Formats: sequence, structure tokens, C-alpha cells
Amino acid sequence: MKVIILGGDGFCGWPTSLHLSKQDHEIIIVDNLSRRNIDNELEANSLTPIQPIGTRLAVWEEKTGKKIKFVNLDVAQEYDRLLELIETEKPDAIVHFAEQRAAPYSMRSSKHKRYTVDNNLNATNNVLAAIVESGQDIHLAHLGTMGVYGYGTAGMKIPEGYLDIEVVTDTGDRVQQQILYPTNPGSIYHMTKSQDQIFFFYYNKNDNLRITDLHQGIVWGTNTAETLLDEKLINRFDYDGDYGTVLNRFLMQSAVDYPMTVHGTGGQTRAFIHIRDTVRCVELALTHPPKKGDRVQILNQMTETHRLKDLAELIQKITGGEIAYVPNPRKEDPENELHVRNDLFLDFGLEPTTLEEGLLEEVVTIAKKYADRVDMSKIPATSIWTSSHKAGIPKQ
Amino acid sequence: MKVIILGGDGFCGWPTSLHLSKQDHEIIIVDNLSRRNIDNELEANSLTPIQPIGTRLAVWEEKTGKKIKFVNLDVAQEYDRLLELIETEKPDAIVHFAEQRAAPYSMRSSKHKRYTVDNNLNATNNVLAAIVESGQDIHLAHLGTMGVYGYGTAGMKIPEGYLDIEVVTDTGDRVQQQILYPTNPGSIYHMTKSQDQIFFFYYNKNDNLRITDLHQGIVWGTNTAETLLDEKLINRFDYDGDYGTVLNRFLMQSAVDYPMTVHGTGGQTRAFIHIRDTVRCVELALTHPPKKGDRVQILNQMTETHRLKDLAELIQKITGGEIAYVPNPRKEDPENELHVRNDLFLDFGLEPTTLEEGLLEEVVTIAKKYADRVDMSKIPATSIWTSSHKAGIPKQ
Repeated sequence: MKVIILGGDGFCGWPTSLHLSKQDHEIIIVDNLSRRNIDNELEANSLTPIQPIGTRLAVWEEKTGKKIKFVNLDVAQEYDRLLELIETEKPDAIVHFAEQRAAPYSMRSSKHKRYTVDNNLNATNNVLAAIVESGQDIHLAHLGTMGVYGYGTAGMKIPEGYLDIEVVTDTGDRVQQQILYPTNPGSIYHMTKSQDQIFFFYYNKNDNLRITDLHQGIVWGTNTAETLLDEKLINRFDYDGDYGTVLNRFLMQSAVDYPMTVHGTGGQTRAFIHIRDTVRCVELALTHPPKKGDRVQILNQMTETHRLKDLAELIQKITGGEIAYVPNPRKEDPENELHVRNDLFLDFGLEPTTLEEGLLEEVVTIAKKYADRVDMSKIPATSIWTSSHKAGIPKQ
Repeated sequence: MKVIILGGDGFCGWPTSLHLSKQDHEIIIVDNLSRRNIDNELEANSLTPIQPIGTRLAVWEEKTGKKIKFVNLDVAQEYDRLLELIETEKPDAIVHFAEQRAAPYSMRSSKHKRYTVDNNLNATNNVLAAIVESGQDIHLAHLGTMGVYGYGTAGMKIPEGYLDIEVVTDTGDRVQQQILYPTNPGSIYHMTKSQDQIFFFYYNKNDNLRITDLHQGIVWGTNTAETLLDEKLINRFDYDGDYGTVLNRFLMQSAVDYPMTVHGTGGQTRAFIHIRDTVRCVELALTHPPKKGDRVQILNQMTETHRLKDLAELIQKITGGEIAYVPNPRKEDPENELHVRNDLFLDFGLEPTTLEEGLLEEVVTIAKKYADRVDMSKIPATSIWTSSHKAGIPKQ
């Protein structure tokens, strides 16, 4: 099939583009390179030596003979060009990664809150409006987040997007309904993904758009079979306090013999997925689209859950690193349980890569291999959720 | 108290500003005059001869000795000026009317969908981010809509924002929760108001902002005690297919002996409120703010519900006009029940003006009085919800 990948130069977008290209899908990457520009702003960089998009695509063609088209376009700002692209290319599907995706970055200042809201919400609305205006039947797959759920209800696994409820009417009758799972976002970034759900609900209802929303956990790992074909195809590895996920920061800290900084008690439980499973999940979502008239299909794109403290201890076992408990810069519960259903992806044939088996590879082939490129000053999480919170920096 | 009214030149904002000024509150109107500019775009105009904002304020001061400040500022675009205004004026409250408020306008084209999303969502986020950045404890009262609820559950009145539910856990336990009422918007405009709710939920949770969300019904009526003080203070009366509410279109049609155009079967039930009650409700909301730490206070700002068909028949009784059933340009259920709680406003002391008692005044003092200003070609609803819907125009 022909697929436009919005945000195809980013951490998830790049390996997804290569994976789908490898499966002989025709891929068009759309990206305004905003993630690279944010690196400039933050004076941070990928630990791994990522190449310019032109080099990436040239090497991909050289290695595989497959051509990926690239269009530099701002999805949130350049509606007319986006519509023209859709009308010209007539894709079967669009994958939408074109959103600012770091919770800490979205909390840095009013400017960053406003950028995240303006970019993410206009990008999503533009894609939806353009699909409607084109009159084409295009399946939209969107990268959402597990973070829209909040922590769920004790004793119940988080379902795949929809919750069965009962309400008692004024006349005492019990009525059963299924509703979009009530959202409880924990940052401005997560808030925009919660608002995205309402875009999808509405456009699906009014315009019968076929939409899949992927509620993704924290992605770990760096490379996929495709990005390993050549070092010039390598994927991003972010370890800075804004874009580095908790696991990447732990890996980096332990690789350079620095204590792993656990925020608060470390009792927070999170959902995880390896990047190899992310690209496979997107492929499975594209090959299992909803039918015309179906409601929005919601899939939980995660494979396991861990307490952050346990993660640090797991890495400690492999590397012998130390653990430092630091203030939690986020406003969140100090401890939470998290149980999640991902039955649909397992039914579609997903075979998860577990942390237990993939972590060592990550330590050796990424964190240690490129350790000389690290800027240690970038690791601490300095974005704070409210003015009364403190940065996640060890006490001196 | 000192109150900034965002959108204070509009249909609800103007009479609210005067009403609060009359009660000796210090009022600052912020408006970019977008509603007047949209009149230019639509080549439509208020039936009533509204004056420029400068004239309005000069006459108000002349009549009452009360001064209202005016700042021409785009809330969605000029964040820095908005923040500066809040930091300089230190208001006790901000009332937020600064959103594009017509469902049909929001459905005209991709351009109008995108404007409504961009304007409404950025405006709301800017106000919230600015309040947080100012560090001040400002009560925000926002004009939402009954339209976020959808049609509710049979046998149950729509509650004030929050729904009691039960879920059955995996272990068979029944857990009771109270959630934000599941949203079911019927247009792009209503969608943005549903997304606003998530802004409020999040900023209230993270930053402890004190917020009241007013879920307003369809406003009817034109004047309040204050706008009646001088004809130069008169409020807008919109009758065009985009901004004219159903009641105004019926009134206008019957005033000029044209059949009242009922969309579809007319079995749609809507919630209504007179503009005199709107301004009173906003005042009651400001004098009954949530306490620091309270969740978002949601009030249903409506006083009665009617089927559209019954409304047309009510006007027919007064004016003797005819009724024409035309295609429904909206994607919606042909018939619905609607029962709504507004206990909090009644507790606060609201004494509703009913349609039964106020309609005749509206026919005589507005529709008939200014009938010579009407442009009949503007009345039909030409915005359609999907390309397969038809405009609400009588068959020839």
C-alpha cells in the first residue's frame, strides 16, 4: 500500500518508515525536521550519530534498492500543501507522528506549553480536515499515548480505549453503556493527546473517517532490523532531561558510571514497548484497519509494565550502577499500579521483545558504544510541573 | 471586583459587560472585533443597529457615569500582550467568551473548521497559561455549551458536568466513580468546547486554577435592562443561516411573512436561556466561585427545553406565520429527548425568564421594529455537515 508518514524523520517515524518500506509499501515521509531544531534549541543531541534525512534516504536506497520520497512540510501550518500532497499521492493510509512528544518539554514554560498545544492540535485537525476535503477513503493511524488513561481503576485492567459502565437513571433503572475511557492526562503533552481523541471521535462520527489510535507506552530500544543495515541508518537515542525517556537516562547514567536518578520513590508504574515492536505494531495496525462505518479503533501499543524503581534495579544487575533518589519534578502520585490489556495486538500476531532480553544489547551496542558522545549536563530533568516542584537533580 | 471580559463586544459579552458594570464591578473588555469582521466576510449584519465599540462605551459612560476600558487584542494570537494585561490589571476574575461560537460557521469549509479549532483552542490555552504564568489567583469563568453532552441517557436528567458511574472490575467488584460527563459533540464548534473541558480539567489538576465552565443552552432574546437604556447600547440580533439561532430565524421569518424553516422533522429538542438570564448567570457564577483546591465547577446555564417543532408552533400562535419543513443540513438524530439539571443556578437565586412570557416582546420590539433592515437571502442555513447533506432551503 501507499503510506504517508507524518513525522517520518523522528524517533518512531524513521524506523517505522524503513520497516514499512522493507515490506514493499510505498512510503512518503513528511517532516519539517522540528525534532532536529528542538535539539538545537536545547543544545542537546542524539547519543547516536544520526544522519541528515537526505543521507538517510540515499543510504536506504543504496542498501535496499527502495526509494522513499521526502517532503519538508509543516503539517500544523501548511494545510494547502498537505491537502495537495494527499490529492496528488492518493495514499491508502497516513501514519501521524507529527506531534511534539515530550512531556517535560511541554512543561518548560508558557512558550513550550503553547507550542505543544498549537502544533499538536492543529496538526491533527489539519490531517483530518484534509482527508475529508480530499474525499478519499484513507485510513489514519495516529500515535497516541497510554498517558491518556491516567492510572485506571484498582482491580481492573485498562481496556482498549473503551470502558463499560453502568449508570443509574432517575427512575432507578440500570443502563449499560460503553464510553471512551475517561481521560486523566499528566502533562500538557498528554493533554493534547487526550484532546486528539475528541478530534477522532468527532471526525469518525460526522465524516465516517477510518481511524486507528495507538495508545503507546514508553518506547525503549534504539534500532530495528532495518536501522541496523548501516550505521548511517541509525535511529535517535535521546538521553536529555526533556526527550530522554526514563530508561534511556538510566542506561546512559550507568554506562558512564553515574548514579541512576530515580524521581521520587520510583513507585510509579509505566507501560513499555521496544521500538522493534512499535514498528511491527504500526504495520499490524495498517494491515488491520477498521471498516467504513466502524468507530475509532483504539489499540494499546505496549507489551509490559514496570515500576521505575524495579527498572533501575534491573539495569543495576546488568551494569552494577548506583541509584540516586532525587525530587520528582512531575506532579503525579508517588506510587501507582498499572495493568493494561493489549489483546488485539496479540491477536494480530505481535510477539513482544521483553526488557529482560533486550536491555543488555542496548547497554552494549548503544550506551557504552557511543558513551564518548555524551553531555552529562543534559541528563537531569529540569522541567518542573509547577513552580513549587523541584528539578530531578541529585543533592550535592 | 475587577473583571476582564474576553470577547466583550459580542452577543453575550456585550450585555454581560454592561450588567457587571451596572453592579459596580470594574470591567475591562478585551476583543479583536472578530465577530464584526465575520459579518463582513458573510456579507451579513445584525438586524439591530449595533454601534462601534467606542460609541457603545461613550454612551454607557454618558448614561451611567461608569467607565469600561477596552483593549483590542487577539486572545488566540497575542499571548504576550494578554499576559501583560493580566499582570498590570490584576483582575479578580476573567470571563472567557473569546471563541468562534457558531456551529454552522464552523462547518462551512476546511478553512472555517481550521479557524474555529485554531482560534478557540489557542485562546483557551493562552488564557490558562497566562493565569498560571502571572502567579495570580484569578477565577476563570468560561462560556461552554450544552452541546458537549450530546443527548444524554434515556430516563436521566443531564447532571451538572459530572456523571456517577459504576464499573465492574476484573475481580467482579463494583466500583463507583464520578467522571466528567462523556462528551458527544455535534459540530466542529461543539468539538472545540469539548476539548476546552480537557484544558480546564488539566490546568485545574496541575495548577489548582479556579475554573467555572458554563454549559450554556441556545440564547434567545436581544436586550437586557442595561442595553435598553439607549438605542445606541442595543445588542446584536443575528438571523443569518450561520449565526442566527433557530429561534431568531423563526422570529425573523414570521415577522416578514415568510414560512419558518424547520430542519428535518423538528423533533430535535434543545435547551434555551434568555440573554437576560445569561448575564445574571455569569454574575452568579462570579459571585459563587469555586474555592482553591476545588475541581472545575460546571453549571448548566439553561432554563427550559423545547422541541424545535413546538417552538415554531408557539411563534405561529403569536404571529400567525407558516411553517415549512426543509432538509436538515446537520448530521444529527431526527428526534431526541433532553432533560437537564440546573439546580445549582436555581440555588444561587436565578429566576428564569420563560419563552412563553418573553417571545411576544421579541417579536414586537426587535423582529417587527427592525424588519426593514432584513436581508432575506441570508436566512437559509447553507452550511452543510457533510458533502451528502443538503442546505436548509425550502423547495421551489
